[in-house]
Amino acid sequence: MPSQSNPELLSELFNLLKPHLAELDGFLKKQINSFEEEIREHVAYCIDTSGKRIRPSLIFFSGWSGDQVVNDKLVKLAAVIEIVHLATLVHDDIMDEADIRRNRPTVAKIQGNSTAVLLGDALFSHAVYLATQFPTSEVSEYVAMAMRNVCTGEILQTMKRGDPDISRDNYQRIIDLKTAELFQVACFLGARLANRSEAFVQAVRKFGRHLGIAYQIYDDLTDLVGSEEKVGKTLGTDIATGKATLPIILLRDRLTDGEEARLRQTLSGKGDVDIDFWLSKLSETGVVSDVRNAIFREIETAREGLGPFSGNRDVELLGTLSELLWNQVDLLQSRQVGI
Amino acid sequence: MPSQSNPELLSELFNLLKPHLAELDGFLKKQINSFEEEIREHVAYCIDTSGKRIRPSLIFFSGWSGDQVVNDKLVKLAAVIEIVHLATLVHDDIMDEADIRRNRPTVAKIQGNSTAVLLGDALFSHAVYLATQFPTSEVSEYVAMAMRNVCTGEILQTMKRGDPDISRDNYQRIIDLKTAELFQVACFLGARLANRSEAFVQAVRKFGRHLGIAYQIYDDLTDLVGSEEKVGKTLGTDIATGKATLPIILLRDRLTDGEEARLRQTLSGKGDVDIDFWLSKLSETGVVSDVRNAIFREIETAREGLGPFSGNRDVELLGTLSELLWNQVDLLQSRQVGI
Repeated sequence: MPSQSNPELLSELFNLLKPHLAELDGFLKKQINSFEEEIREHVAYCIDTSGKRIRPSLIFFSGWSGDQVVNDKLVKLAAVIEIVHLATLVHDDIMDEADIRRNRPTVAKIQGNSTAVLLGDALFSHAVYLATQFPTSEVSEYVAMAMRNVCTGEILQTMKRGDPDISRDNYQRIIDLKTAELFQVACFLGARLANRSEAFVQAVRKFGRHLGIAYQIYDDLTDLVGSEEKVGKTLGTDIATGKATLPIILLRDRLTDGEEARLRQTLSGKGDVDIDFWLSKLSETGVVSDVRNAIFREIETAREGLGPFSGNRDVELLGTLSELLWNQVDLLQSRQVGI
Repeated sequence: MPSQSNPELLSELFNLLKPHLAELDGFLKKQINSFEEEIREHVAYCIDTSGKRIRPSLIFFSGWSGDQVVNDKLVKLAAVIEIVHLATLVHDDIMDEADIRRNRPTVAKIQGNSTAVLLGDALFSHAVYLATQFPTSEVSEYVAMAMRNVCTGEILQTMKRGDPDISRDNYQRIIDLKTAELFQVACFLGARLANRSEAFVQAVRKFGRHLGIAYQIYDDLTDLVGSEEKVGKTLGTDIATGKATLPIILLRDRLTDGEEARLRQTLSGKGDVDIDFWLSKLSETGVVSDVRNAIFREIETAREGLGPFSGNRDVELLGTLSELLWNQVDLLQSRQVGI
């Protein structure tokens, strides 16, 4: 259980990461100039600096080289992984027909879908180009594989959209590919570039994978339960667009026959979308609580592998990061659902 | 001037390339299995084998290792470049809202835009992954850079769509990035992997670049004049969609003031689209003839650099390939426009 409050944890991590993230921002901004002049403004808009930088944080912590030491190789790797992530967001917004991301219009909204497709492609290409600038091909190899897996996860998700029969295994596989993949590669390559032992590299890789799974389940849960950062947002857009996430899959199996039929209709786009009804059902049936526990289990699994290395500064920092997510999930539960 | 007819040249090149292209097709088909099972069918649809395989031919000829010798490294490189090309086609068809390519429905038409965006991304990623499997990072580095340039060219083209003021320089820059780039990288890396001298590598690189420019101008001209392979297709779709290619740019400056104003209206999507009128103007004003000459000049520039290496089998084959394009342009002119 967490011993510190969220604001304390956040400010501790923020202070430690500050010089690393400042270097990363500088490095990212410099990349804009390697694009052709006419498109730099568009690229700059994509490489925005308001993200949570979770993947870069995983890289910096997995290869932590001392509290005052900023490792250039890790900064470059963080830029590669963050640009890949930003490219997927540009493409995601086309598919979701999203108008707003991080409080401003999406690239697709401003530039149109064609330019958004191409800008995402250009960002992908540049990330890979940067990855080829490491002395060994390991970085570009793993980044390319991770990119393919992220896209595959998104394709599977698209294929399953509107399918009321999606199983928990299907869901698990989708989030493993679309989210956990990049988290695990961030940790893996971060530790590799810092020349850590093979045992440690594999341990942080596993940590990254399970933290990624936990994070995605949390993210999906906030579409239904609401979180601090998402207050004021429309809840239930996943149900409304036929995207069955873990809470919905669990709920489906706890409903009366009539309710289940109604949920299936809703998911397949044929029925009405009475979000309030489903939100109250989620709470009533104990699904929110079970999903919360599923996230906690993933965080515990993530931490387990780090056990043999406890006491190390890197492990302490990764642990703090996971505690932050744990607290978020805890707050979500107690504040919004009132259990 | 060409000494052989097109069918003769084609069959000569086809026979020589047959074992190489068969290996390439086999290699491409094997790649399908490295994708996750659920999406293999989609990937197989994208990796179709009905293309002209121009870029692979450039690779095989630039690194030609003997008439009966199939070089595995070149086969793998050809697969990388061809997959990048196929990925750009998948994304192009989304942007052009095209329903048909190579006589069958486009991926975007069958699977929807979302899956098409992601499948293109997955293909890009896989191409890069394959590129990282070479012993040095040179292949993945150049492939990533080329991908970024191709996308940049397409972005510039999208930005200029509907702009009646596009200059010849703008057009040149767009086709240099979007088409000539991949042609030149194909030749460059083909020769590099075959361990050719630096002088030869640079010569074929220049050859590739100018052949690419020639090919794109030819391709743009066939939208207005029609070619053997495009018989039965709708002419003038570029004018109709506001895409000003070289013939249109040249035509714009040879019209009466009234006609020019009308063309500008048409390009910017405000006027009527009387394709027949513009087709007759193209012929009347000598634009078709001038564009044909521009292509010939590019082919000549492409060949020039190979001069010091004439007599080599590779140069002979690259020359034959360029002759094939020359003949196509020649036929186009004499048959369709009647000059």
